[in-house]
Amino acid sequence: MSGNIFGSLFKLSTFGESHGPSIGGVIDGCPSGIEIDLDEIQKDLDRRKPGQSSIVTQRKEPDEVNFFSGIFEGKTTGTPIGFAIYNTNQKSKDYSHIKNSYRPSHADYVYDEKFGIRDYRGGGRSSARETASRVVAGSIAKQFLAPLTINAYVSAVGPLKLKSSPSEVDLSKIEENIVRCPDSKMASEMISLIKRIRKEGNTIGGIVTCVIKNVPTGLGEPVFNKLHAELGKAMLSINAVKGFEYGSGFLGTQKKGSEHNDLFNSDGSTKTNYSGGIQGGISNGMDIYFNVAFKPVATIMQNQETINSKGDSVEIQGKGRHDPCVVPRAVPIVEAMAALVLADFKLLKRTNKI
Amino acid sequence: MSGNIFGSLFKLSTFGESHGPSIGGVIDGCPSGIEIDLDEIQKDLDRRKPGQSSIVTQRKEPDEVNFFSGIFEGKTTGTPIGFAIYNTNQKSKDYSHIKNSYRPSHADYVYDEKFGIRDYRGGGRSSARETASRVVAGSIAKQFLAPLTINAYVSAVGPLKLKSSPSEVDLSKIEENIVRCPDSKMASEMISLIKRIRKEGNTIGGIVTCVIKNVPTGLGEPVFNKLHAELGKAMLSINAVKGFEYGSGFLGTQKKGSEHNDLFNSDGSTKTNYSGGIQGGISNGMDIYFNVAFKPVATIMQNQETINSKGDSVEIQGKGRHDPCVVPRAVPIVEAMAALVLADFKLLKRTNKI
Amino acid sequence: MSGNIFGSLFKLSTFGESHGPSIGGVIDGCPSGIEIDLDEIQKDLDRRKPGQSSIVTQRKEPDEVNFFSGIFEGKTTGTPIGFAIYNTNQKSKDYSHIKNSYRPSHADYVYDEKFGIRDYRGGGRSSARETASRVVAGSIAKQFLAPLTINAYVSAVGPLKLKSSPSEVDLSKIEENIVRCPDSKMASEMISLIKRIRKEGNTIGGIVTCVIKNVPTGLGEPVFNKLHAELGKAMLSINAVKGFEYGSGFLGTQKKGSEHNDLFNSDGSTKTNYSGGIQGGISNGMDIYFNVAFKPVATIMQNQETINSKGDSVEIQGKGRHDPCVVPRAVPIVEAMAALVLADFKLLKRTNKI
Amino acid sequence: MSGNIFGSLFKLSTFGESHGPSIGGVIDGCPSGIEIDLDEIQKDLDRRKPGQSSIVTQRKEPDEVNFFSGIFEGKTTGTPIGFAIYNTNQKSKDYSHIKNSYRPSHADYVYDEKFGIRDYRGGGRSSARETASRVVAGSIAKQFLAPLTINAYVSAVGPLKLKSSPSEVDLSKIEENIVRCPDSKMASEMISLIKRIRKEGNTIGGIVTCVIKNVPTGLGEPVFNKLHAELGKAMLSINAVKGFEYGSGFLGTQKKGSEHNDLFNSDGSTKTNYSGGIQGGISNGMDIYFNVAFKPVATIMQNQETINSKGDSVEIQGKGRHDPCVVPRAVPIVEAMAALVLADFKLLKRTNKI
Repeated sequence: MSGNIFGSLFKLSTFGESHGPSIGGVIDGCPSGIEIDLDEIQKDLDRRKPGQSSIVTQRKEPDEVNFFSGIFEGKTTGTPIGFAIYNTNQKSKDYSHIKNSYRPSHADYVYDEKFGIRDYRGGGRSSARETASRVVAGSIAKQFLAPLTINAYVSAVGPLKLKSSPSEVDLSKIEENIVRCPDSKMASEMISLIKRIRKEGNTIGGIVTCVIKNVPTGLGEPVFNKLHAELGKAMLSINAVKGFEYGSGFLGTQKKGSEHNDLFNSDGSTKTNYSGGIQGGISNGMDIYFNVAFKPVATIMQNQETINSKGDSVEIQGKGRHDPCVVPRAVPIVEAMAALVLADFKLLKRTNKI
Repeated sequence: MSGNIFGSLFKLSTFGESHGPSIGGVIDGCPSGIEIDLDEIQKDLDRRKPGQSSIVTQRKEPDEVNFFSGIFEGKTTGTPIGFAIYNTNQKSKDYSHIKNSYRPSHADYVYDEKFGIRDYRGGGRSSARETASRVVAGSIAKQFLAPLTINAYVSAVGPLKLKSSPSEVDLSKIEENIVRCPDSKMASEMISLIKRIRKEGNTIGGIVTCVIKNVPTGLGEPVFNKLHAELGKAMLSINAVKGFEYGSGFLGTQKKGSEHNDLFNSDGSTKTNYSGGIQGGISNGMDIYFNVAFKPVATIMQNQETINSKGDSVEIQGKGRHDPCVVPRAVPIVEAMAALVLADFKLLKRTNKI
Repeated sequence: MSGNIFGSLFKLSTFGESHGPSIGGVIDGCPSGIEIDLDEIQKDLDRRKPGQSSIVTQRKEPDEVNFFSGIFEGKTTGTPIGFAIYNTNQKSKDYSHIKNSYRPSHADYVYDEKFGIRDYRGGGRSSARETASRVVAGSIAKQFLAPLTINAYVSAVGPLKLKSSPSEVDLSKIEENIVRCPDSKMASEMISLIKRIRKEGNTIGGIVTCVIKNVPTGLGEPVFNKLHAELGKAMLSINAVKGFEYGSGFLGTQKKGSEHNDLFNSDGSTKTNYSGGIQGGISNGMDIYFNVAFKPVATIMQNQETINSKGDSVEIQGKGRHDPCVVPRAVPIVEAMAALVLADFKLLKRTNKI
Repeated sequence: MSGNIFGSLFKLSTFGESHGPSIGGVIDGCPSGIEIDLDEIQKDLDRRKPGQSSIVTQRKEPDEVNFFSGIFEGKTTGTPIGFAIYNTNQKSKDYSHIKNSYRPSHADYVYDEKFGIRDYRGGGRSSARETASRVVAGSIAKQFLAPLTINAYVSAVGPLKLKSSPSEVDLSKIEENIVRCPDSKMASEMISLIKRIRKEGNTIGGIVTCVIKNVPTGLGEPVFNKLHAELGKAMLSINAVKGFEYGSGFLGTQKKGSEHNDLFNSDGSTKTNYSGGIQGGISNGMDIYFNVAFKPVATIMQNQETINSKGDSVEIQGKGRHDPCVVPRAVPIVEAMAALVLADFKLLKRTNKI
């Protein structure tokens, strides 16, 4: 398997299966001299961890990160930052029900097709547990990026959709409720919906919106490595993501050029921001905002018909501790991936001019 | 500027500005022994070229490709394929109106911010003319990928949206009309709309849908380089693209897990295909389909207020030969980028097992 | 710091300082289905570890590797292989003598210049302790490469030089003595020399020769990534290496073409092998052999004048536990790096043809 | 074939066969704002071109470079620099004598093994003609690197070896004679030797030494991408190179640590320079110097026995216009590759600190 390294200068290499001894990673290319606030990293991990509230999986796992290198006397040294999160909650349960059976809309079948072998305990490498490593690296990237800020929030759960635009919402309210929607009324409705869905033994999708402020101009590389192209790849690499749009997005396709063009103010800022802070693949200094679509979690608490590795029809039982809706826990992951992309481009920008 | 190389094994490196002597590229990593049909390449270029119909820009440019290397006696040799398309239609017109002025929602401003210098003739490097090089490389990639097929079509122009799903449309009808919508009735409406928009001196957005058939299982690398993540990046790297979704996409966020899961048939195929042919980032053998959102072209035939490089307010005149709607010409570009992604993963797949 | 990832398909990312909690790495791109013999890995580590004999540093460190992922039921799964070696022998000694002083011909000064901060405990990241991670990965690569074999040996210590050519030596005798020279008489002389040098509180350089057998044709990529160019880079990346030559090497510069050309046998093998198994950057199926030059270790047991970070003249004391000659312990490192290069090219070769 | 892209930030992608219509390349990642002196580029090309003197191949080829993009009004714009050199001297001679025969110590056999197809006209892609593209890119890199200077010279032809060390030679005298040895007496001897060798219909090897001055500290990345490791790879990627050593090189292996350590002056410079300007893989500000070993050219003007693609014994005739000794023309190629490595690290250095 290739594909476990992200970034071109600020690089993250991750490892680990959901039921192995640990997951973790190595950050290569992190500049020296960044003062690292370890509490901030743990705070981000806590926003992602299972068991944090009544609407997420009730699996308990502390998700504490251990750093092995690259931070010395509170600062990054420029050397690789190695880290691990030990897996502490692997129940030695019987996995025989999925050992030879393919869970629908999971990666079991394609892993067997691709590799001819599969760690069948939990999702193995395809488990979203892997994203904890991204949160660690992303949290360090955020500290490098300051005063630039990255804030994601839940803007939709199933059919419930926040009406306010990203420029209207109060980002300081995101963490005030367990669903991470900055509108308290909508948040209550979303929470109720998720609880109802869970009772059905079902799951539901949703949308995470991300807003990035204090963005310098000039981030992003033209042609193939446009800023939004790399952000899109980063988001689409998160488990369960089905779509990405930035600025005016899919709705922008219905607009006319005369409506959609962002006219300039004299300081180079724009009167509107349909561009979502990115023009020609390069940040223009306006706020960046984008939406990330998450499908409903594939593991449901209902029995499903499926096949085993021989192609025989079998029934797979709905059991275990899983999320009824992934978006509340996806918020810090979206932020982390955005941070990794921006950290990379922040470094790359230094190489643009003579 | 970095960012002009695409792919990890099947690599395309492109160069060229809209008003320089030529654009072109180098393909490195193309396997040896592929019989190249040069007519197929030209056919794809002709589907992209300006002046091809009454609803695209009336600029005339033959867009003939010259190969310098890598093809010998009709076959690829495994060595790099260098090629160029000479620019023949650069009117020696006066560019003073945009030399120091920033066209709204174009890349002029950000290029100046990033590089401190800009080839102001036409869009320079940010011009979509660059995509002709992608079509050349993509067409070669298609010939490597056969019998896998890639077909894109226009599924929306502004508010006009094709109702049929990708599995319902007759792909053989795409090229039967100039807007490249496989439904002749909808095509007529789209053509009328584009003509009306053009008369207004305006532009309009649209959506291109792409369908890939005969896909082997196992394409795509887990975690960061998921198949849909690379497809998303590839599409978002095309000029004017604002969004990408695959399979159930943004609509899938409203679904429940019990509705959305694709149950297996005994041969490993699935009864439904909300996954869009990709599970866990890896192709499962079902058809791949995705949507690409294009914004309205920024250049309109109306005067607009803007600023010059000193921040003074100036008026920029709407003139020149431009597309009222980019999606008909974007169809072969979407196909080309999909082909480059799949060619890369086809090669990478060979390295998965011992 | 960038530069901690090696390889293009079979990729190793390493982390760790000599006096941090652990060193380790992540292998990304290792194919699935390789049966892993953990004893073989430990055996290679033992050949590199300190304290193994009377002519190496007497520091004792078990260097046991812990695998975190990527190996399941005895086989590689294709997912990343994360591993760590815990540092157990970091004496909590006082490092004040080198905290602000620059050891001559060490990396202390350049690290401070480059990063503005330095983990001054031991060599930090610049310590050769880092190479243990390479040995782990290289040992896995060897198991992937079998039946190809890689054997390195000591061919020179200071002025003592083995006369026999790589095709003449008996590779099975390498591990029969502690200096790892396959000629027992020469080995004795080398051991005596190293002991004498140690008594002087001094160090001495040497040469490691490597022989690779059962090489398939077609490894290596023309132009920039020639097989010997990547082998050269790999060797030169090992601490203390000053030079690399393959085949006829520097002596070949004195030869005439008529003497140096390797004439063919009818099966494509060659009558002589001045090419060292590589022609045009690609393996031709003959044995590959090359030499790697190691300078004398910079840490000597003699006091030296040097400067501190303010530029003041200070004396640095010769103390600690260090190698008088690095080549006996370098043998498995040379093999490991050769294995990583070859594993990469073995995978890459699969992408050459349609 | 992969392997035609060099560099991580300042990237060169080359294409072209010796007997195709053109060779050339694309530079991606060149910073904007570099004033380009086209005459300097042509001057470097002229130092490499065939027919320049009586001791090189008498093939006449002007080797004029055509730029397609990336340079505007005399400066680099930051966009990719596309260029081509048209092949003008391909005699339409009969290649049947090498079409199916493998020239000894050439790449013919391995190309057929690797790719199953080969452009048999001249060396095709394996011809050293490809290095002209490197010289173009290297010459641009030199202009970016100024006031750093790179000067290579011939230090050995066959057994004739310049005694003076790199710090002793007068670099301003290199171009005063056709063999490019800065010692006029030694140059005469070398020229005589090459002429004698040519009369024999034979060829001879040699050594090129390179000296880099005004080097900033901090170039090079620790561990795998050490400055000398990348320089070594760059040099070993040049046709006919068999070895690389820097600083004390292979002779350094015979030294003791007490003799070899470079003691500091108070300003951080060193009293001696056995390190060759590089410590721990990072430039320390002292002059960098290294040697590159070139084997005798494989094409000799004598008949040789060889095999054809069926394994039958055939005789290959010595004919054509070839170099009796490659080092005089290799001088600008060595400089170019050094420039590419240093340009890359100059950019990378900007990303080291916060």
